[in-house]
Amino acid sequence: MESITGKRLGPMYAEACPTRQVLDRIGDKWTALIIGLLDDGPVRFLELQRSIGGISSKMLTQTLRNLERDGLVRRTIYAEVPPRVEYTLTSLGETLCAPLTAIRDWAEAHIDEVSEAQSLYDDRDEATGG
Amino acid sequence: MESITGKRLGPMYAEACPTRQVLDRIGDKWTALIIGLLDDGPVRFLELQRSIGGISSKMLTQTLRNLERDGLVRRTIYAEVPPRVEYTLTSLGETLCAPLTAIRDWAEAHIDEVSEAQSLYDDRDEATGG
Repeated sequence: MESITGKRLGPMYAEACPTRQVLDRIGDKWTALIIGLLDDGPVRFLELQRSIGGISSKMLTQTLRNLERDGLVRRTIYAEVPPRVEYTLTSLGETLCAPLTAIRDWAEAHIDEVSEAQSLYDDRDEATGG
Repeated sequence: MESITGKRLGPMYAEACPTRQVLDRIGDKWTALIIGLLDDGPVRFLELQRSIGGISSKMLTQTLRNLERDGLVRRTIYAEVPPRVEYTLTSLGETLCAPLTAIRDWAEAHIDEVSEAQSLYDDRDEATGG
């Protein structure tokens, strides 16, 4: 597939391509934060929830289930009382750590520039009546 | 900030941190696709729309406006008839190309493994009654 300017485009530029759904999931902020925590080893549900400010149980459960379905995260249940459930990265999930770390690092490194740009835009927008 | 396992956490792990909003925006699939197209030089609105299958005018307009507000994209209007409007990456936007290319490349390289994992998960889920 090519853009009208002749640039070679990846399959995710086509509407129905499953690659685009994957792109959407891996770019999700919860995914980036969860994978960042699992990068160091197995983590339990409550540890994840306490480490990620503002994530609801429902959102965490759903995101973990999607990541498990995508083959990125493995859920292991240990037969203890109460049962212990741990989440670890699969080998496929590990390959995603470097790209996602680069994205998180970018956000952290450039937040001041982005905030400044936003203030300038809003001031200008106000001055011109929107 | 530290997780309860002692891992040093970036600011985006805190709920109200603006870094998390930035993380959310740059991880958005439309952002990844738009920045990927602008990587080669100025692009006009209609070229973007034709190159990104399934994006609505409204969604493209809104995403470009957010990217402009974040200081990642510059909108230039040329006084022609009809007026020509071009979008280019700012120098800040250019720094985002490499991390986003890595994310798009990951999705493209691993789509088969992800699809296979999804099929296995769905079969297993069906076998165990959900």
